[in-house]
Amino acid sequence: MPSIPLTPLVNGLPSTVPFVGPEALERQRGVAFKARLGANENGFGASPNVKKTIAEAASEVWKYCDPENHDLKQALARHHDVRPENIAVAEGIDSLFGYAVRMFVEPGIAVATSLGAYPTFNFHVAGYGGRLVTTPYVADREDPKSLLDLAKREKARLIFFANPDNPMGSWWPETAVTELIGSIPDGMVLILDEAYGEFAPFGTLPPLDLDNPKVLRFRTFSKAYGLAGARVGYVIGEAGVVKCFDRVRNHFGVNRLGQAAALAALADQAYLRDVIAKVSRARERIGAIAHDAGLRSLPSATNFVTIDCGGDGAFARSVLNGLIDRGIFVRMPGVDVLNRCIRVSVAPDNELDLFAEAFPQVIRSLR
Amino acid sequence: MPSIPLTPLVNGLPSTVPFVGPEALERQRGVAFKARLGANENGFGASPNVKKTIAEAASEVWKYCDPENHDLKQALARHHDVRPENIAVAEGIDSLFGYAVRMFVEPGIAVATSLGAYPTFNFHVAGYGGRLVTTPYVADREDPKSLLDLAKREKARLIFFANPDNPMGSWWPETAVTELIGSIPDGMVLILDEAYGEFAPFGTLPPLDLDNPKVLRFRTFSKAYGLAGARVGYVIGEAGVVKCFDRVRNHFGVNRLGQAAALAALADQAYLRDVIAKVSRARERIGAIAHDAGLRSLPSATNFVTIDCGGDGAFARSVLNGLIDRGIFVRMPGVDVLNRCIRVSVAPDNELDLFAEAFPQVIRSLR
Repeated sequence: MPSIPLTPLVNGLPSTVPFVGPEALERQRGVAFKARLGANENGFGASPNVKKTIAEAASEVWKYCDPENHDLKQALARHHDVRPENIAVAEGIDSLFGYAVRMFVEPGIAVATSLGAYPTFNFHVAGYGGRLVTTPYVADREDPKSLLDLAKREKARLIFFANPDNPMGSWWPETAVTELIGSIPDGMVLILDEAYGEFAPFGTLPPLDLDNPKVLRFRTFSKAYGLAGARVGYVIGEAGVVKCFDRVRNHFGVNRLGQAAALAALADQAYLRDVIAKVSRARERIGAIAHDAGLRSLPSATNFVTIDCGGDGAFARSVLNGLIDRGIFVRMPGVDVLNRCIRVSVAPDNELDLFAEAFPQVIRSLR
Repeated sequence: MPSIPLTPLVNGLPSTVPFVGPEALERQRGVAFKARLGANENGFGASPNVKKTIAEAASEVWKYCDPENHDLKQALARHHDVRPENIAVAEGIDSLFGYAVRMFVEPGIAVATSLGAYPTFNFHVAGYGGRLVTTPYVADREDPKSLLDLAKREKARLIFFANPDNPMGSWWPETAVTELIGSIPDGMVLILDEAYGEFAPFGTLPPLDLDNPKVLRFRTFSKAYGLAGARVGYVIGEAGVVKCFDRVRNHFGVNRLGQAAALAALADQAYLRDVIAKVSRARERIGAIAHDAGLRSLPSATNFVTIDCGGDGAFARSVLNGLIDRGIFVRMPGVDVLNRCIRVSVAPDNELDLFAEAFPQVIRSLR
């Protein structure tokens, strides 16, 4: 067999994937999940306008999407009161993380994140040969002070901070984030993941500072807007650094239906507000279900609730498996201390009914 | 202003884009094109089943796509009579070219292609620091012999060959491609771009050899299947090398509607055959329009026709601008000798009517 002449970097990469999809679990188990509560999707769905828009756009799916994503950038600029030059759009927030890592990281460059934070970002850091350095969560939150100290000590070029955070659902007030931003030294860039930003209480997201190339703020249509399948994300930042995404991005990468869907979703802010209210109520219900089972749920500024199962990682894994066995798809954090928890995405009541039935059964069966 | 700590590689990249979209030209001109004949899209559109499928899938756009693209890989495997392990799916053929380049190319590694061949592939080679070496087209075809000689001489790791070719529409019979494949030395990989393969005459595409990791064959749903806006491409190859795409790909990158659309398109082979027949007739019509204007069109195995404008690059540019001024979007090759031509994508008769009217006017006005 001839050799496969991979680069040394790619030759050294594992073939592991950041997440196993629920569909793979369904295929393994031979049965579909009854409740899809694991991927932090928005089970309330997208705006009805989105569905109409997609159906209409279907007749033009033979056309490539505008590679400049002009209309969506204009609409986002109006929405955020910035200029279109401050926005880069791409095929999902994951691809934007990949582009950002590619722009700044080469073999040996350090990147600082929290131990247990978003795995797909780490996947990209490994993929470009970066040296990932981590600091633990403190009281189930990413800790901006120790993260910054670590980044400075290790001369990190990137520092990843999610606010609100996944997988714990925790968050910091804008004052703490503003302080972090103000402390980023020259030569370092803050990757500020605000994928769950729309769900956060007022006073969580700092105002946009478009003169500072040391901060890139990542947003997505996958969560609050209910468009995970559409693959549309964007980054907001200083125009010069945002322009650099043009050097590496897949220019025709955004799906034409996805762009149309994102435009329709953005235009329906009334629906967004309604979804956010529903998400808030669903969070409370998940919290109550945990409480009724004698367990504590963590406060959440996201569309999921992290439940402390009250034991170690093995116990939480048993809870997760018990739920999966009962047809309820959930996920859990991957590292110690955090992995005493499971993570339950909000969903409409019919799915939470199933969770409410299964969860106490699982807990009882394990006690 | 703080510095932007790009890697030296990205710092040295130009901000140029491989293609300007028709939408950007429309915005510049302040008026929409009347005929969209420039991007080699399929103006006959996707199967009606695709439109129905997309409209139905719209209500599930809140779900991420299966990151293993299981169903589509199964269907493609059946279609091509290969195993699913021989197929990797991604968000468009351009992203697959990017992944392939990333897998094999690092700064200084040589990559061989034909001067004037697909610019987006070159964009990725530059993006990963590869050293692009080129050999000219011979008689408006990529020349496999000189390409292979060049690649061997320059110790290239990748060799790009499109069959059929874009932008000239030319092609080689499978015997020539099989000979090229058989001559690839160990340590080199052939990037065989078959984006237009469905349009080619029988005997153009060599049989699939799934034991040879030195050949990767790239296919797309953007052309014959009429799904350019859906961003679904795939690569066929030996299972071991195909598996390596998992190390670098954007696992959740495929749009859920795109995957559903691709499945529906693949299932409607009768529609595909009908489109291919329509494309063939439209090619003949474009050829006749050129002939009537006293010009020669090149034989084409694709969904476009390259017209030799009978002068130099500046003259062809004037023809192109004249068409654009009349609301007809076309493109042209970018390098000398080839750039004596313009490239006209097939389209339904109502758009070709406009081309038939405008083209002789433009030619007359320039003579």
